[in-house]
Amino acid sequence: MPELRKDPIIGRWVIVSVERAKRPNDFNVTHVGEEETKPCPFCEGNESDTSQEIFAVRKPGTQKNSPGWETRVIPNRAQNFTIYGDLDRRGAGMYDVMHPIGAHELIIESPQHFTDLFQMPEDKIEIALNTAVARMTDLEKDVRFKYCLLFKNHGVKAGGSKRSKHIRSQIIATPVTPTRVKEELRGSSFYYKYKDRCIFCDLIKQELDTGTRVVMETKHMIAVAPFASRFPFEIWILPKKHCSDFIKIGKEELKDLAGIFKGVFSKLSKALNDPPYNYMLHTAPFRREKKPGYWNTIENDYHWHIEITPRITQVAGFEWGSGFYINPTPPEEAAKHLRETKV
Amino acid sequence: MPELRKDPIIGRWVIVSVERAKRPNDFNVTHVGEEETKPCPFCEGNESDTSQEIFAVRKPGTQKNSPGWETRVIPNRAQNFTIYGDLDRRGAGMYDVMHPIGAHELIIESPQHFTDLFQMPEDKIEIALNTAVARMTDLEKDVRFKYCLLFKNHGVKAGGSKRSKHIRSQIIATPVTPTRVKEELRGSSFYYKYKDRCIFCDLIKQELDTGTRVVMETKHMIAVAPFASRFPFEIWILPKKHCSDFIKIGKEELKDLAGIFKGVFSKLSKALNDPPYNYMLHTAPFRREKKPGYWNTIENDYHWHIEITPRITQVAGFEWGSGFYINPTPPEEAAKHLRETKV
Repeated sequence: MPELRKDPIIGRWVIVSVERAKRPNDFNVTHVGEEETKPCPFCEGNESDTSQEIFAVRKPGTQKNSPGWETRVIPNRAQNFTIYGDLDRRGAGMYDVMHPIGAHELIIESPQHFTDLFQMPEDKIEIALNTAVARMTDLEKDVRFKYCLLFKNHGVKAGGSKRSKHIRSQIIATPVTPTRVKEELRGSSFYYKYKDRCIFCDLIKQELDTGTRVVMETKHMIAVAPFASRFPFEIWILPKKHCSDFIKIGKEELKDLAGIFKGVFSKLSKALNDPPYNYMLHTAPFRREKKPGYWNTIENDYHWHIEITPRITQVAGFEWGSGFYINPTPPEEAAKHLRETKV
Repeated sequence: MPELRKDPIIGRWVIVSVERAKRPNDFNVTHVGEEETKPCPFCEGNESDTSQEIFAVRKPGTQKNSPGWETRVIPNRAQNFTIYGDLDRRGAGMYDVMHPIGAHELIIESPQHFTDLFQMPEDKIEIALNTAVARMTDLEKDVRFKYCLLFKNHGVKAGGSKRSKHIRSQIIATPVTPTRVKEELRGSSFYYKYKDRCIFCDLIKQELDTGTRVVMETKHMIAVAPFASRFPFEIWILPKKHCSDFIKIGKEELKDLAGIFKGVFSKLSKALNDPPYNYMLHTAPFRREKKPGYWNTIENDYHWHIEITPRITQVAGFEWGSGFYINPTPPEEAAKHLRETKV
């Protein structure tokens, strides 16, 4: 019989099929019609084909918008946000509206034409992650911004570009906190009030004790298939040590995160034939620790993590509309399969 | 410049592009590779190709599972839920789990092979809607159920079946309230406490006063493109008279709802070349009025409505993960276009 499982953080219910579980081969991921256009504007040497760079990790002595970089950050082509002006918060009758002050940036994560993170050497993944930290640290200084989304769309079916698969992630800084984040903050704050403990810390402890949903573990990080996974092969990566704010990550932890990224994405790619996926960082809103109050228990109640969601099943209408999911692969089986996938 | 708009009910922010708005032709909906398999198991005469019927609206004297029906309700083929047993709510360490007690039913809305609601005569649409009311009324009697989802997946890209496009909707009765519904209940309850008015009633009044986002209006119903539409050509249908519970719909209102369905889906189909879409009923949880308390202001604070979401754009990873959307078509333009679409 399937099980109805509850996500402990936001209270989302998921039906997890336990019998007749779908295995990796059942998903049959294909890549027909995904040929890239050449030349790739994101490769080293083609800097003039992109917008002007905002930031780069560069070899000493090299010039802006020219070769010699490790990572390069440029504005996103479609500019739905503007960095100029003030928010101009106003009403429109009962509605609320403001200027879309924000930033939307692309992090080109390698000068070489890699197409998935695991293909990169660990030290280069580390540089890419550090670039995100640097950009987020800079964006936090702008007091108009409340939140910063860091995410990746890998593969056309996950919203990735058809033009080039060159490895890159994206950052969106916004003047509002997204609803999913608010739900998590509300849920984890509620738990903290009740238990005086971080819900994510409890979750990590239970997952390490049980072991059945652990995909990988390093000294500082853990990758688990969450108990109430919405999607087959959903994976969360969390730091073992409590911390609400990703940009406070330590040097050792970042190194470890690069390692676990390489491991997890190698396994996913091999097990599921390079599946389309998204990942998204969930971290505390900007300057949260400085505003104690109902939703702010000064960094204790929230715990940054990264949610990786392969896009290998069609999401049905009722899942969209209700936030109530059916997952055909138990996380225990997904984790076991990924643990056993040799890379 | 685009606008950052807030959905007043759940506080979800959406970026709405105002310049360079996408028009219907920009979406380029195609139907390649969507040929149906014959014969259709849902057509009159093929009753033996489906599961046994649970309920039917039938001509007097006709037999169960034989021709002579107007609508027929059968169990969904993939049974993720079970109607037998008790919930057996239990903990698994910090997690919560229960048996997936529930019902998943298909409403075959016509004995003829129609593929979209607007093709049906209004009186037949009314019978189809009445069938949903009858099933929901019956399911409410089962005290194990807390909520009932009524929805439609139209078109393969909206999760519709590849096998047959025969018109049908779906019902899922669950022992839990889905998170999206909880968000709406929380938001509308908050507004009610502050204003002593229903937020949806206020919204209807403002939309009727402004007029720019109204798609259609009948005596009892209104169809609007919501102010903070997540998707191009998103439409909500609401009863003008306050009511939290869909199954209490009156005879005249139901007739009117059939009429506005016919109008709205005719326009959508013509304007966007038969786009894939989902619709979902948002109604109060079962037996809500009998439980006054913090979230229950005895029917006053919630207002049932139907959300229609065309699936004509790819939803990007960050929209999924954050609940923060970018919509390239302002609802004012979508509404204007649909108003002017002659059917």
